[in-house]
Amino acid sequence: MKGFFKVTDLEHTLKYSAVFPNVGTEFIELHEAFERILSVDIVSDINLPDFARSTMDGYAVKASSTFGATEENPAYLTVKGTIDMGKPASFSIGSGEAAKISTGGMLPDGSDSVIMIEYTEIIDKTTIEIYRSVAPGRHVLATGEDIKKGDNILSCGQRLRPQEIGLLAALGKDSVKVYKKPVIGIISTGDEIVPINNIPDKCRIRDINTYTLSSLVQKAGGIPVAYGIVGDDFDALLENCSIAIAHSDMVLISGGSSVGTRDLTVEVLSSLPGSDIMVHGISISPGKPTILAQTSGKAIWGLPGHVVSAMIVFEIVIRPFIEKISGLSLKYKKELRIPALLSRNISSAQGRIDYMRVRLIEKNGIKWAEPVLGKSGLISNLTKADGLIEIGINTEGLDKDSKVWVIPV
Amino acid sequence: MKGFFKVTDLEHTLKYSAVFPNVGTEFIELHEAFERILSVDIVSDINLPDFARSTMDGYAVKASSTFGATEENPAYLTVKGTIDMGKPASFSIGSGEAAKISTGGMLPDGSDSVIMIEYTEIIDKTTIEIYRSVAPGRHVLATGEDIKKGDNILSCGQRLRPQEIGLLAALGKDSVKVYKKPVIGIISTGDEIVPINNIPDKCRIRDINTYTLSSLVQKAGGIPVAYGIVGDDFDALLENCSIAIAHSDMVLISGGSSVGTRDLTVEVLSSLPGSDIMVHGISISPGKPTILAQTSGKAIWGLPGHVVSAMIVFEIVIRPFIEKISGLSLKYKKELRIPALLSRNISSAQGRIDYMRVRLIEKNGIKWAEPVLGKSGLISNLTKADGLIEIGINTEGLDKDSKVWVIPV
Repeated sequence: MKGFFKVTDLEHTLKYSAVFPNVGTEFIELHEAFERILSVDIVSDINLPDFARSTMDGYAVKASSTFGATEENPAYLTVKGTIDMGKPASFSIGSGEAAKISTGGMLPDGSDSVIMIEYTEIIDKTTIEIYRSVAPGRHVLATGEDIKKGDNILSCGQRLRPQEIGLLAALGKDSVKVYKKPVIGIISTGDEIVPINNIPDKCRIRDINTYTLSSLVQKAGGIPVAYGIVGDDFDALLENCSIAIAHSDMVLISGGSSVGTRDLTVEVLSSLPGSDIMVHGISISPGKPTILAQTSGKAIWGLPGHVVSAMIVFEIVIRPFIEKISGLSLKYKKELRIPALLSRNISSAQGRIDYMRVRLIEKNGIKWAEPVLGKSGLISNLTKADGLIEIGINTEGLDKDSKVWVIPV
Repeated sequence: MKGFFKVTDLEHTLKYSAVFPNVGTEFIELHEAFERILSVDIVSDINLPDFARSTMDGYAVKASSTFGATEENPAYLTVKGTIDMGKPASFSIGSGEAAKISTGGMLPDGSDSVIMIEYTEIIDKTTIEIYRSVAPGRHVLATGEDIKKGDNILSCGQRLRPQEIGLLAALGKDSVKVYKKPVIGIISTGDEIVPINNIPDKCRIRDINTYTLSSLVQKAGGIPVAYGIVGDDFDALLENCSIAIAHSDMVLISGGSSVGTRDLTVEVLSSLPGSDIMVHGISISPGKPTILAQTSGKAIWGLPGHVVSAMIVFEIVIRPFIEKISGLSLKYKKELRIPALLSRNISSAQGRIDYMRVRLIEKNGIKWAEPVLGKSGLISNLTKADGLIEIGINTEGLDKDSKVWVIPV
């Protein structure tokens, strides 16, 4: 494959994600399920609530007993008792009768509505005066009003937020079937890379990428596994890569930044059994030298060695692949892009999508995206950024005050 | 304290967070530090890069050797050798000389700039022709240009994103001092609450709140510890509460929804040694009956029993308290609120801040916030929502097309 370098556009690159199968599934306890992705549809086997509940503190009544009641012309009702929480009433309610009830209490037979305590006055032990009429169903959550038995309430591919966890708890699902977290192997390459606890000689640098990529994998819901640093050596990289692929659902090789290391990565990826180089170069900047290969149904990436490029490629290209194999449904993939106005003119090259780092600043109730200036290779600049903006492939630049959508990083 | 119920406004409630001390600190390994909060300032003890690095593939030169070079009038340079990655050059560069260099390579002594390979042509083994002039410093990252020795690069109270983890790796910080994750005790109360793996009798409901609150605590960076379900019993709640406080940095009691349970919670909180009821009622809806007490420098909350109210109170009120004791600096607290236009008129009561659930919908490049209609108590509605909008205390409602800021949930 050496020498081949036909750049693929971003859209086509992202489409390859469909090729890779989802990871397997597992049952986990509900208290461990936050942010996990459901691998089944959930159908309710109960009504929620399972009984008519009061949504206010007051008196359960037949609505018809209150019709016509006003401040000037109150109605008088006989109080038959108090509804204890967690217990059914031992009596029923007829015309002209009421039962004291708390929020969450079960309506006694015969009652169909609740009058708020604020519109009542106690006359004696068994009599109240009421100043308002209520319609049937008022301040009552009817049986099945929240969820009906048989409702499809959550879907396969949905990521579980606190509210979905709550809904599963309400249905008594103390364990839940989810997709496993994909295991992502991470390899750093390049003769100039040393472990971070070493003091690098002049002309070497520490292995930043293993750490940033591991954090990004965690952020994307995967489990990072570091396979260490490999020098610019074909056999060593092939061996390390083969081990990583055998134990991972996807592998990220962050190449040294030099052409030599990049060529080496392609050679190794081409030599893996049954491998196929799907993408060799993407028309984005930074990140153009990115390589995507597949072997045994797993994606292996050759990433630019420079940390800033590698992070941007991860955010824009690799994260969607991890989400795909994690089983996340597109329907539930909320792309949180923040609209803002650009604070200054910026220029860009045509023929590629440019990603620029921006700070988000709020002034007079308007959100501004302020480009973080400085050379693109500075990691310190990335720590100053709140997000990225995309400058389209056929755009020479963007004017001050243009509307942009900021991808938070 | 019984009977006392003077509502506090949100702003004053939030100010009480300053009263509670931060949790302790710990050293952790860098690979575990993603999303943790730094408890020290980080000062760089090195320059980054620690040597002048090429940012392109090309030739390292003295810029003055290239002055005047054009397509029509190229300059000719003598190639003294190739810079190996991770090794210093064994030679230096003088006028009219060049060294082949890769991205990331260390500039040899005497050179001050790099000419891109695209603007050169090989004439013979030791001679290249160049078509452009470069200025000194071109395509070079100078020593200390990213980070200077002595720079204060990260601050106490900062939450570590992948890029900050990368910066710490670059500095060789393989362990890092962070705030501990606060431990948050969670108690469910109410005679009507049963464990989720039980089939509730009619008139009882499952313990949803322990699960939603645990997920919310995780989302806020805390460690949830469940202390189970306590019936409406003073002694049992006092005992459970005392145990939870002894082992936690904060305690959340989600009260049964009835007035009786709420009164009980206040009585128990008032009976704790040295306790002080700081807030009894907040002028927000939902969530008005919220109680905040302190004992031994720890916050104890009495939350509404209804899951939707409890979740909204958590998001709006409790999360900032957890962030405070977690050591998160206000400066690094990015409130991710998404601007959108309201899709329809909504009404609201004055004298309180109302929180309304909305879906985010994009139409023709405009983000719309669409209120999720239906009774406020429905948990199914919360699963349909993407966020909350706030309707101010002196506002009777908001018109269609109003600009709103959506708080993602």
